[in-house]
Amino acid sequence: MYVYGKNVLKELLNSNKTIYKAYLQENLKDSNIADMLNKKNVKTFYLSKNNLDKITKENHQGVILEIDDYKYYTLNDVLNNRSSNPFIVILDHVEDPHNFGAIIRTCEAAKVDFIIIPKNRSASVNATVMKTSAGALTNVKIAMVTNLNNTIKKLKDSGYWIIGTDMDTNVSYDELDYDMPVCLIIGSEGFGMSKLVKDNCDFIVSIPMYGKVNSLNASVASAIVIYEVLEKRKKVSCEK
Amino acid sequence: MYVYGKNVLKELLNSNKTIYKAYLQENLKDSNIADMLNKKNVKTFYLSKNNLDKITKENHQGVILEIDDYKYYTLNDVLNNRSSNPFIVILDHVEDPHNFGAIIRTCEAAKVDFIIIPKNRSASVNATVMKTSAGALTNVKIAMVTNLNNTIKKLKDSGYWIIGTDMDTNVSYDELDYDMPVCLIIGSEGFGMSKLVKDNCDFIVSIPMYGKVNSLNASVASAIVIYEVLEKRKKVSCEK
Repeated sequence: MYVYGKNVLKELLNSNKTIYKAYLQENLKDSNIADMLNKKNVKTFYLSKNNLDKITKENHQGVILEIDDYKYYTLNDVLNNRSSNPFIVILDHVEDPHNFGAIIRTCEAAKVDFIIIPKNRSASVNATVMKTSAGALTNVKIAMVTNLNNTIKKLKDSGYWIIGTDMDTNVSYDELDYDMPVCLIIGSEGFGMSKLVKDNCDFIVSIPMYGKVNSLNASVASAIVIYEVLEKRKKVSCEK
Repeated sequence: MYVYGKNVLKELLNSNKTIYKAYLQENLKDSNIADMLNKKNVKTFYLSKNNLDKITKENHQGVILEIDDYKYYTLNDVLNNRSSNPFIVILDHVEDPHNFGAIIRTCEAAKVDFIIIPKNRSASVNATVMKTSAGALTNVKIAMVTNLNNTIKKLKDSGYWIIGTDMDTNVSYDELDYDMPVCLIIGSEGFGMSKLVKDNCDFIVSIPMYGKVNSLNASVASAIVIYEVLEKRKKVSCEK
């Protein structure tokens, strides 16, 4: 896939990922960027801004790179690699790549074990996600599954508690102690969790809203609950 | 100023804000949108997509509207309109309009009394902020000040406790009880709080990061701390 931007380039060079080709804007010929790519023996082509714009409409900063597509983990990877204090986040059709990128960044900071996304009607790992996640992508495991409901059932059987987020509940997100294998479900931006997924939840929690608007940005809402899980687990472990 | 998008139009119509002119894409002539604008006697002009694109490069969905510029509150408004449990958020040169919009949305949900921004080197209320804040803008008070450090000193004199967020501290954001007039400072995306602002803080708190990446998205970080303030205040008020 094509990715872009100067920060993304730095991350790729630091993480030793293979860059197959680099397309730089002509005026970058004598820059540090060209030197860095040269040192790693990356095939580099110089194009006009117009021609770079044809590859991506986004703000590429004169740097477009060709790398391997993201290799997703599978549900089996998730089930077979359980940490001592498991914490999984499922995105139920989050479609905005900026939200997906920001959620990846939060999950990396919070050491979430896996993010699970469905194959259809979901943002997947692309250049925008890579840029928004600000380097976190190389340190987070993302699994892609074909059927969320089957996935949830298997996670339940494996001992996970399924915790959904929704406005339509009296349980506030800060009322649980999260001292259990947690699988947290974040609904889509417009529609929240799908009905079947909601029916499969063990708990449904909401974030109290004191204003007139009745929803938060999906990446903001996930961060509030993800960090609450960490905070409560810290407390539980201090009390033990 | 020009704002754009179908949702923004709906918000404006609901909030009874004056729309001076509407520029619609030609194929919207016989739509609900045209009817709604007609009912409110808004002067409406039909343009080609190309001509609309000349007004804004953003995704306008065929709808561009001319409205009054945002009328900022002043520091005096902030000082003279203290709520019973004051909570102010200062943005120390947050420059990304998407982050600013998402922070506005969180502050609205959390009933923050005022958001304060500096006049220079800061995102201000524009069309992108309006769109990202998803309707929250009409229900949040934003004050613009010329000098953040003087502002902070005056807020201190007025009884506020100044709480900064930074990575470089051992105090976790969940260690305070926030049972005081709170002025929370969010640093800029790239550089955090400026040195002088940091020196003026009564407390500096950090959000623990357990991964390799050492920062969260600014709107995500603010949401985690803003909701912690609410959670702690709820607990304190239950214990009283």
